Amino acid sequence: MSINSFGHLFRVTTWGESHGPALGATVDGCPPGVPITAEMIQHWLDKRKPGQNKFTTQRREADEVRILSGVFEGVTTGTPIQLMIENTDQRSKDYGDIMDKFRPGHADITYYQKYGIRDYRGGGRSSARETASRVAAGGLAREAIKAIAPDVQITGYMVQMGPHQIDRNSFDWDQIEQNPFWVPDAKAATEWADYLDGLRKSGSSVGAIIEVTARNVPAGLGAPVYGKLDTDLAAAMMSINAVKGVEIGEGMSAAMLTGELNADEIFMGNDGQPRYSSNHAGGILGGISTGQDIVLRFAVKPTSSILTTRKTITKSGEETEIITKGRHDPCVGIRAVPVGEAMMACVLLDHMLLHRGQVGENRGHIG
Amino acid sequence: MSINSFGHLFRVTTWGESHGPALGATVDGCPPGVPITAEMIQHWLDKRKPGQNKFTTQRREADEVRILSGVFEGVTTGTPIQLMIENTDQRSKDYGDIMDKFRPGHADITYYQKYGIRDYRGGGRSSARETASRVAAGGLAREAIKAIAPDVQITGYMVQMGPHQIDRNSFDWDQIEQNPFWVPDAKAATEWADYLDGLRKSGSSVGAIIEVTARNVPAGLGAPVYGKLDTDLAAAMMSINAVKGVEIGEGMSAAMLTGELNADEIFMGNDGQPRYSSNHAGGILGGISTGQDIVLRFAVKPTSSILTTRKTITKSGEETEIITKGRHDPCVGIRAVPVGEAMMACVLLDHMLLHRGQVGENRGHIG
Amino acid sequence: MSINSFGHLFRVTTWGESHGPALGATVDGCPPGVPITAEMIQHWLDKRKPGQNKFTTQRREADEVRILSGVFEGVTTGTPIQLMIENTDQRSKDYGDIMDKFRPGHADITYYQKYGIRDYRGGGRSSARETASRVAAGGLAREAIKAIAPDVQITGYMVQMGPHQIDRNSFDWDQIEQNPFWVPDAKAATEWADYLDGLRKSGSSVGAIIEVTARNVPAGLGAPVYGKLDTDLAAAMMSINAVKGVEIGEGMSAAMLTGELNADEIFMGNDGQPRYSSNHAGGILGGISTGQDIVLRFAVKPTSSILTTRKTITKSGEETEIITKGRHDPCVGIRAVPVGEAMMACVLLDHMLLHRGQVGENRGHIG
Amino acid sequence: MSINSFGHLFRVTTWGESHGPALGATVDGCPPGVPITAEMIQHWLDKRKPGQNKFTTQRREADEVRILSGVFEGVTTGTPIQLMIENTDQRSKDYGDIMDKFRPGHADITYYQKYGIRDYRGGGRSSARETASRVAAGGLAREAIKAIAPDVQITGYMVQMGPHQIDRNSFDWDQIEQNPFWVPDAKAATEWADYLDGLRKSGSSVGAIIEVTARNVPAGLGAPVYGKLDTDLAAAMMSINAVKGVEIGEGMSAAMLTGELNADEIFMGNDGQPRYSSNHAGGILGGISTGQDIVLRFAVKPTSSILTTRKTITKSGEETEIITKGRHDPCVGIRAVPVGEAMMACVLLDHMLLHRGQVGENRGHIG
Repeated sequence: MSINSFGHLFRVTTWGESHGPALGATVDGCPPGVPITAEMIQHWLDKRKPGQNKFTTQRREADEVRILSGVFEGVTTGTPIQLMIENTDQRSKDYGDIMDKFRPGHADITYYQKYGIRDYRGGGRSSARETASRVAAGGLAREAIKAIAPDVQITGYMVQMGPHQIDRNSFDWDQIEQNPFWVPDAKAATEWADYLDGLRKSGSSVGAIIEVTARNVPAGLGAPVYGKLDTDLAAAMMSINAVKGVEIGEGMSAAMLTGELNADEIFMGNDGQPRYSSNHAGGILGGISTGQDIVLRFAVKPTSSILTTRKTITKSGEETEIITKGRHDPCVGIRAVPVGEAMMACVLLDHMLLHRGQVGENRGHIG
Repeated sequence: MSINSFGHLFRVTTWGESHGPALGATVDGCPPGVPITAEMIQHWLDKRKPGQNKFTTQRREADEVRILSGVFEGVTTGTPIQLMIENTDQRSKDYGDIMDKFRPGHADITYYQKYGIRDYRGGGRSSARETASRVAAGGLAREAIKAIAPDVQITGYMVQMGPHQIDRNSFDWDQIEQNPFWVPDAKAATEWADYLDGLRKSGSSVGAIIEVTARNVPAGLGAPVYGKLDTDLAAAMMSINAVKGVEIGEGMSAAMLTGELNADEIFMGNDGQPRYSSNHAGGILGGISTGQDIVLRFAVKPTSSILTTRKTITKSGEETEIITKGRHDPCVGIRAVPVGEAMMACVLLDHMLLHRGQVGENRGHIG
Repeated sequence: MSINSFGHLFRVTTWGESHGPALGATVDGCPPGVPITAEMIQHWLDKRKPGQNKFTTQRREADEVRILSGVFEGVTTGTPIQLMIENTDQRSKDYGDIMDKFRPGHADITYYQKYGIRDYRGGGRSSARETASRVAAGGLAREAIKAIAPDVQITGYMVQMGPHQIDRNSFDWDQIEQNPFWVPDAKAATEWADYLDGLRKSGSSVGAIIEVTARNVPAGLGAPVYGKLDTDLAAAMMSINAVKGVEIGEGMSAAMLTGELNADEIFMGNDGQPRYSSNHAGGILGGISTGQDIVLRFAVKPTSSILTTRKTITKSGEETEIITKGRHDPCVGIRAVPVGEAMMACVLLDHMLLHRGQVGENRGHIG
Repeated sequence: MSINSFGHLFRVTTWGESHGPALGATVDGCPPGVPITAEMIQHWLDKRKPGQNKFTTQRREADEVRILSGVFEGVTTGTPIQLMIENTDQRSKDYGDIMDKFRPGHADITYYQKYGIRDYRGGGRSSARETASRVAAGGLAREAIKAIAPDVQITGYMVQMGPHQIDRNSFDWDQIEQNPFWVPDAKAATEWADYLDGLRKSGSSVGAIIEVTARNVPAGLGAPVYGKLDTDLAAAMMSINAVKGVEIGEGMSAAMLTGELNADEIFMGNDGQPRYSSNHAGGILGGISTGQDIVLRFAVKPTSSILTTRKTITKSGEETEIITKGRHDPCVGIRAVPVGEAMMACVLLDHMLLHRGQVGENRGHIG
């Protein structure tokens, strides 16, 4: 049992805190022979990196990843891969005035209640900075997936920010990379920019919903009944900072459907593979992938650090007030997009390896 | 790594399928000295048992649990506890006509694609019958919790069935045991009965949302960052048959909140413990319990077995149609209520043991 | 983490105690499609079964195994397999007079010190009866291995009993099945029978060394550095009741070798595979199989239950004396032979699956 | 499942290879509040460090450890602790001439057969250099043990080198730190120095047996039946490079004992704790500590790198010869002493935490 590790065969252990010397991911179980360089991983870290536009925290971090082990002559060797990112902009003085106060909505109070330690430096281990390690591991997972199932495409994007939802009829994959929110809807991108700018200036923050889709995933992945693909995805997403809900396919709305509507009908496709009339299941039945798109959503709560005064208490139990200054994201959901993608990549690779180990090649042939 | 086990220290492995000789739970890591009898566990199994009213499947199962190991002179010994339930009403002939057809919305097709085996007897391992094992393990977990934190109360109930939601203003704990839906709202119970009766007669089905609340849970439970309390709860609930979404506290609606609304303010209570102005967090911050009520919801999709003809394919790839006769629940969400409670009990006990192992007693003292 | 489970992908959880209603093995991760019947498993249980000759305990147990799940139409389905053996000859009255006394050399005192429970019925969970579950799981593992590497042969035999060792020059595989000790040496078998008969009549007991050889194991199995093949084998054997030492290849005698003697020289065989001049390594280098025979030995201490009076204490701390009557083995090492074989089978299968999952097919081609 | 991790609750993942940029240990599950500095850990690394006398490899490594996470203001925080050691003397040119040859007795051939990768730089991951990570983790474990059971003393020493054994009658704890072999016998130390000097000059090497004793370990540690204390210790020691055998208490010699001799008689001590007449069990009964000294031994094979020509093959399957020049230990067993101690410390701490989690305080009171 390990509390800072996830994955069955592709096993990632993250370490490090917001203001320590470094953080990173110790990755065990990556298959040998995968071509990988620090640059390939850096690409994904840059996507998550703070300070890229006015909508994300102005903390300046190079977020430069180094590969310290497990790669020789440009390929993975099958031994543990250490991915390290040094913290360069630690400025812990920013946080001096909250040394004794617990920030509402943050994990300050519960970490103290659990461990008896108050690491007041920007949240310590509970900081969203930990997700840089996940993105690094996810970048590696993407390269390893290529060797097993090269057609797999993993894409995250925002579908809701505060009260604003995308228009599904305007959904455009090509828009995702064109705006700071990774929104697949050009009109929404413009409107959301105005909305968020207002929030930012007022020192407020707002929540969001991220959707992650994985296309061309082979059927048969998932290990019922406690290592189901949706189970592991739900755990992966819920473990991300500030996430409060996870949905697969219809998600919470499945409650409103009747059996007739919900059961995706099955046909044979021209390629000799099953074809479905719809995808209410989100690509997963009984915890196993169907071959349809895997579709999940997760909700990120608003950044808890805001410029409005809030009531709280101190370590010694005195009631007081707090304003959380510092450098923060008005919508932390934005930077959760690459994190959600990274977790999807890690879980999919893990289940590809697990399936291979347990069953060998995909066995059930239809037709 | 084990795919049919869950839990870190209180570790439950379920086994058995819908129409085999028996099913059960192998429970490892239950603390020694817990008074337990088969009757105590039977109480919870009876709550889940089919055939109790017209809204649940008419399959007749005694669901009688036997304790085969790990208990001596009425108390647990610290060794593995085997809880076995024999299948008595197997009537596999009911399922004969679906031997080669995959039922839409069911896991028939994915199990076949993964394992190359078609266990056509009522879903085999993917049947919701597996949840009887969970309820048995959960009954044991409840007794073990009593020894560690006797005030903990775990209660599940329905808050939505199809389009019908409860009225939160009429919420009444005492109503939950008074109706077949475990709804905390007398008026809803009556209306829902009519609604569901209509669906049942037409051979249709509908989804539901279950809420599970745990009261008086001590602060400090949860093992960040991949064994967070909400992570493990999300995995536990998502692993239940037919669940498509899981929420903690505000859940998916957190996306619509601003930071000011979301961050529960903190005060000191008269009992010397922190007190919160609200519970948007659902009792969990940073993956660790706050001492507030833990509140989660999960959505159950409509029963996929319905009396309406649906398009599907056969093992040999031919397109065809299917009607799923047999004995089924019009709203399988009803029987998911005790299952959700059982999973909550298992996860909480597990984290109580884990906290004790890792940290010893709760260490951070406020005030 | 689970204390009564072993294996990475082929994961066995044993349950049950000496005098409870039943015991068994919950096996998770067995590949689908393996032909298996209770009779196939029974074959190996019969080898371990007590009461077969005057050298093993006269306890009468049918040791009849039932398959309760995970097998459909004669093949494994990829879901958990429950193997149950009911206890029929429980005669717990035999043990009544040791209710309060701790038997020296037995685990009575440590189980009590750990769990606070005194299960005086024949050792409870610490009884060697638990090994029946292992043999059942091992029988299943043997069948699953056949599908992956059909040439693998796993054979256990005694090489030492008390001061008597086999003559390696007389080693004869065909003798192993011809005597009650599974000794590969006809002359030794005769002499040992006399020796042990004397010990049995005097109510004494003696230790033994078992060797287990696995032939035709493919190169490349093992998961360094903490899941090495020899690491997992050492753990597997040391977990067997009464085992006090485990050796691979030269074992403890490796301490006496020089580098020149120890390093097995490498040549190319006529079959295009590496060939070695010797096998000091016991078939494992760096924790990975070489393709040579895997050779391990483990030492079993003498049965602690003897007819000689020994000093001990009671639960209440009073000094007293004890004679352990009852039905016992003068050399418990005899029945450890099939147990050692079973553990070897489980570990090898597990590593075949693990290798497949992590690396795919054996990748390094020589020549 | 993770192949480069060990431990249940105190979980250590090591990473890094002989000639990469760095190596280290990611330690998860260390209790919070343990005072720790890099210097405290450095103390133990210095004991293992190469180049300290003529009997160990002349490779020059500072082996300087840095703590990159999990420690704040001088105490552990309960979050993952990253211990990193940079490789400074990588001189991979030394190994150039073995790029295509497999060194007999080394893991070169099996790593290649498994992973398809030939990391020819000094053994890569299979190098004993990996044990530096273990010693670092062990240093941390020792400090954490102090907080739980301050009287525990863990001491490793050599008891055999080649044909030379210590005289148990001259055993002297105080001698262990006085000689380069950590031998508890002054006379042996002198004689062994001459013996090993001869071997060194001739370019040969020899094996050794290390004994590790843990004193004042509380009764009740160990998690039967697959997480027994001796099981976990056997795995821990067998996972160390070059180890071929592990013994507890009487070890392999238990085979020669009768039941009368083997069963340590039990009395009550003046301190109200059980007292034993002897310790054939090595402090462990049924996989659980008795409170007596825990005594284990492991055998280390001779260093495989020697100056004598040996036959081998190349990657392309050609037969050839090899002499392994470079900087090596004539008796690698010497440097295995601190490694054995480190593994003992990690296993004991792990079981202290596990016992606390599963059982709470030691429950069975005698007297």
